[in-house]
Amino acid sequence: MKLAILFGGASYEHEISIVSAITVKGKLESKFDLSFIFCDQDHQFYLIEPSKMKAVTFSRGEHRKMAKLGLINGGFEQRGLFGTKRHEMPVLNLIHGGDGEDGSIASLFDFFHIPFIGPRKEASMFSFDKHYTKWLAASLGVKTLPYEIVRKDEKRAVATAYPFIVKPARLGSSIGVSIVREAGELDYALDVAFEFDEVVVIEPFMAGVKEYNLAGFSARGEITYSIVEEPQKAEFLDFEKKYLDFSRSGHVAEAAVSEALVGQLRDAFKAIYAPLFEGALIRCDFFEIEGEVYLNEINPIPGSMANYLFEDFSASIQKLLGSLPDKKAIRVNYDYIHSISQAKGK
Amino acid sequence: MKLAILFGGASYEHEISIVSAITVKGKLESKFDLSFIFCDQDHQFYLIEPSKMKAVTFSRGEHRKMAKLGLINGGFEQRGLFGTKRHEMPVLNLIHGGDGEDGSIASLFDFFHIPFIGPRKEASMFSFDKHYTKWLAASLGVKTLPYEIVRKDEKRAVATAYPFIVKPARLGSSIGVSIVREAGELDYALDVAFEFDEVVVIEPFMAGVKEYNLAGFSARGEITYSIVEEPQKAEFLDFEKKYLDFSRSGHVAEAAVSEALVGQLRDAFKAIYAPLFEGALIRCDFFEIEGEVYLNEINPIPGSMANYLFEDFSASIQKLLGSLPDKKAIRVNYDYIHSISQAKGK
Repeated sequence: MKLAILFGGASYEHEISIVSAITVKGKLESKFDLSFIFCDQDHQFYLIEPSKMKAVTFSRGEHRKMAKLGLINGGFEQRGLFGTKRHEMPVLNLIHGGDGEDGSIASLFDFFHIPFIGPRKEASMFSFDKHYTKWLAASLGVKTLPYEIVRKDEKRAVATAYPFIVKPARLGSSIGVSIVREAGELDYALDVAFEFDEVVVIEPFMAGVKEYNLAGFSARGEITYSIVEEPQKAEFLDFEKKYLDFSRSGHVAEAAVSEALVGQLRDAFKAIYAPLFEGALIRCDFFEIEGEVYLNEINPIPGSMANYLFEDFSASIQKLLGSLPDKKAIRVNYDYIHSISQAKGK
Repeated sequence: MKLAILFGGASYEHEISIVSAITVKGKLESKFDLSFIFCDQDHQFYLIEPSKMKAVTFSRGEHRKMAKLGLINGGFEQRGLFGTKRHEMPVLNLIHGGDGEDGSIASLFDFFHIPFIGPRKEASMFSFDKHYTKWLAASLGVKTLPYEIVRKDEKRAVATAYPFIVKPARLGSSIGVSIVREAGELDYALDVAFEFDEVVVIEPFMAGVKEYNLAGFSARGEITYSIVEEPQKAEFLDFEKKYLDFSRSGHVAEAAVSEALVGQLRDAFKAIYAPLFEGALIRCDFFEIEGEVYLNEINPIPGSMANYLFEDFSASIQKLLGSLPDKKAIRVNYDYIHSISQAKGK
């Protein structure tokens, strides 16, 4: 089965995406005929030789010697001296953050009729922006933490009680995120967050709250859930933790949770997933507070595709590939122009 | 000043977009060096000779004899026997409905670094879907009519009192819209709306309510407002009315409204516009009910760019072109990979 892995992107998570792609390669290469498509920070696509799928290939700029690809209807095109070669296969969108998760790649691939695993453009918008995620969750009856919004050009007045957490609205992972414990720390935390976004989300910081992650996807009308994981505790992810997160490939143990809680987590996941996230394998991160489940965030392209949460990751990807959503075709027959022309007597 | 007009698209409003482009050509050709780029229903781009900018060119398929264009970084590319020619100029996105107003073209142009007039992808998403428009307006303190949502796969239970109006969530103009006066009409109206969308918005139908349209755009931090128009009354637009709407070029009279109402309309427009709609010239359609202003819908690419509402339409477009938003560039320096490599001793 052919599959291309797309990674890189003009994104603060560009490098993390490279790490993720290398990990997923290791998990899928025995079952798939894989190609690797790198998107550089200027949006040039390159076809990467499988043996060169190492982080240093990109940090040293060696990818620039490889074949350039352009987007055409149905896939990618490689131009050469003796003509062009078409590359047509489904694509796994593994660009984390900007481009991949903000709806750009989804729009491009839908426009050029390229089948892909990943969030579609609306799903991207709602998961990419933490503020919009709150609107979506509220409309679907899924709880989230209380929050307030601060905009770059507004007065820096925060009503939430200390300690609270300050997050740029539109970045994944832990980039630009701070915990603010007292008034003296606020300005610096906002300065950092405003480096990355004009809009900042503030939520109460609750130490010691239980966290649970659940991944899954829908195929043929049914959701396949991963195991529930209780992520390793840390106030938040630092540099090395993040690397560990995106390069994870070993299977993890299921969290010791009650059947009732698994049911609650799955219900919340299902409400968020369907029908907006069809075509994507997503990971939802939840809090449990006093027996209630709260959505923390939606990762529509989780680090290394959350492969470590699935019993058989290759089989999961195969199943999802067999059930990608079709974009409804619109046929134009020019009846309207014909009738105008007739009405005008032309 | 060079400017390309992009029109067509895989959209139920494909033909209306052709009418709109022909109208805008008439309004701008004396002041701009115009090119015309047609997007067919399969997403092939064509460069249209200005003298062939007539509706029958497209209904007869004559555009297929003209130069094909491909998207490249910075613009469009025309391939020929003796090499390729680049077309680089700002683009006025005049694709109404799908593709143009749903964020696809915005994503493509942002991705390929093509400057354009039109809504950016988030703005598109919120204006394209009437349901999401309600969320946006609520968050900005702008009133809209009460509503309920019916989904295709759900029970057809409607709580709104008759008469009400049934609209597909994601289509502009009057396509798929019905007024339902009694229970016997509901099923048919929903069947029609579900032809076009899986999600339907239901709002009370209020006969005799005053309607006002206001267009505008932001340039250099300031909004330029059009005159306020009271659109011609009709329960809703039929076939010929729609043609008249998209081919309008004659200047219209300002509605006889109080200064206070103009102020209210402008305040609501400004709240909706900034900062989400930067780069676009939009038309907001409002209701006035008991002295209060309600947003009906946002047209982020209004028919014929609402040229008839501006004193000097060419000057307005020039002003907007001089103030298009820049996408913040993200530079990748591979510090992260370098530090991982060092940490791993490689």
